[in-house]
Parts: sequence; C-alpha cells; structure tokens
Amino acid sequence: MAMLIAVYKTPKDAAAFDRYYQSTHVPLAKTIPALRSYDVSNGPVGLPKEPGGVHLVALLGFHSLAALGQALDSREGEAAAKDLANFASGGVELMVFDTKPV
Amino acid sequence: MAMLIAVYKTPKDAAAFDRYYQSTHVPLAKTIPALRSYDVSNGPVGLPKEPGGVHLVALLGFHSLAALGQALDSREGEAAAKDLANFASGGVELMVFDTKPV
Repeated sequence: MAMLIAVYKTPKDAAAFDRYYQSTHVPLAKTIPALRSYDVSNGPVGLPKEPGGVHLVALLGFHSLAALGQALDSREGEAAAKDLANFASGGVELMVFDTKPV
Repeated sequence: MAMLIAVYKTPKDAAAFDRYYQSTHVPLAKTIPALRSYDVSNGPVGLPKEPGGVHLVALLGFHSLAALGQALDSREGEAAAKDLANFASGGVELMVFDTKPV
C-alpha cells in the first residue's frame, strides 16, 4: 500500500474549511484514479508538541507508489491539488510513501 | 479506528536508526495493549515542501481513541515512548486522532 497523508494546519475559518472540504474537496479527491481508501481525522488532532496546530489529517491509500504517482499526475489529481488553495488557508503538508507492516 | 502517527525527522545516523528501530523499538511498540495495526514507510518519504526532511513514518492503529489513550498510559506504552530518546536523534512529531472514512 502507498499512502498520501495531508496534514492541514489550523485554517483561518475552521467552519468554512469543514463545509468546503466535505462538500467540494472530498468529492473532487474521490475522482482520483486508483484511490483505494480515504479516511480523515474525526474530531481534534492531538499533538503533544504543538497543541491545536493541526485541523485535519487525511489519509489516502493507493495500491502502489507507481499508482499514486500516476494518480497525482492525472487530470483529477491535478484538479484536487489545485483545489487546496480554495480552503487550506492554514497551509498543508503532504507526505507520500510506500508502506509495509512491521 | 484511532491512529497514532509518528513522523521521524532525518536522524544523525540513518543506518543506526534503522537497525535500532527494527531490532528494538518495533518489538517494544508491539507490546502496547490494544494495538491493531502497525505499518511503517518503506523507502523514501516524499515531501514536496521539505524534501529529505522525514526519515520514517509509523502508522499505529487502535480500535478507539479511548483504547489509544489507555494504551499510551500503560506500562508498555510508556516504555515505547521513553525508547524514542534512544534513536530518534532528528526528532519526532506525534499526531493522535480518531478517523472516519469519507
């Protein structure tokens, strides 16, 4: 499994963020080809070192790193990436990696 | 599902980190009660904004946020947390949250 993790820092207007994310960004991101799983944080995100610094975490799973790369380069992937500017006013950190169980 | 994500920044000695993590920290973390899944990044972690800044990402899943909290407060959880100082020389960021599919 390959993962894309998006860490959304606290936005200027959390309620507006939540409305836009659920109504617009989620449907857009769900069109990304080869997306296998899509979970988001439900409630507060606890960070011992930086309390309140993160508003939402999204975990997107893909079959492989190659599928993830192709998905991001697709028209749908580019549209979802471009959409970040419409709501992620606190900034977003993306991490992309393959995973293995230990 | 509730998640604990540990983001390990690039350590001083990556090979020593990998040896210690696999041989010592993983077996220790696996003793944490109520741990349901434990995956780690396999290969490089890509960060568009900060390339090379992250060495390893660990994803630990628990049944619920309550189970996760109890697990971290357990003897095994405290031992795993204390062990971080033995290898995470680049620092580690922890995030704890409940999840839902979207």
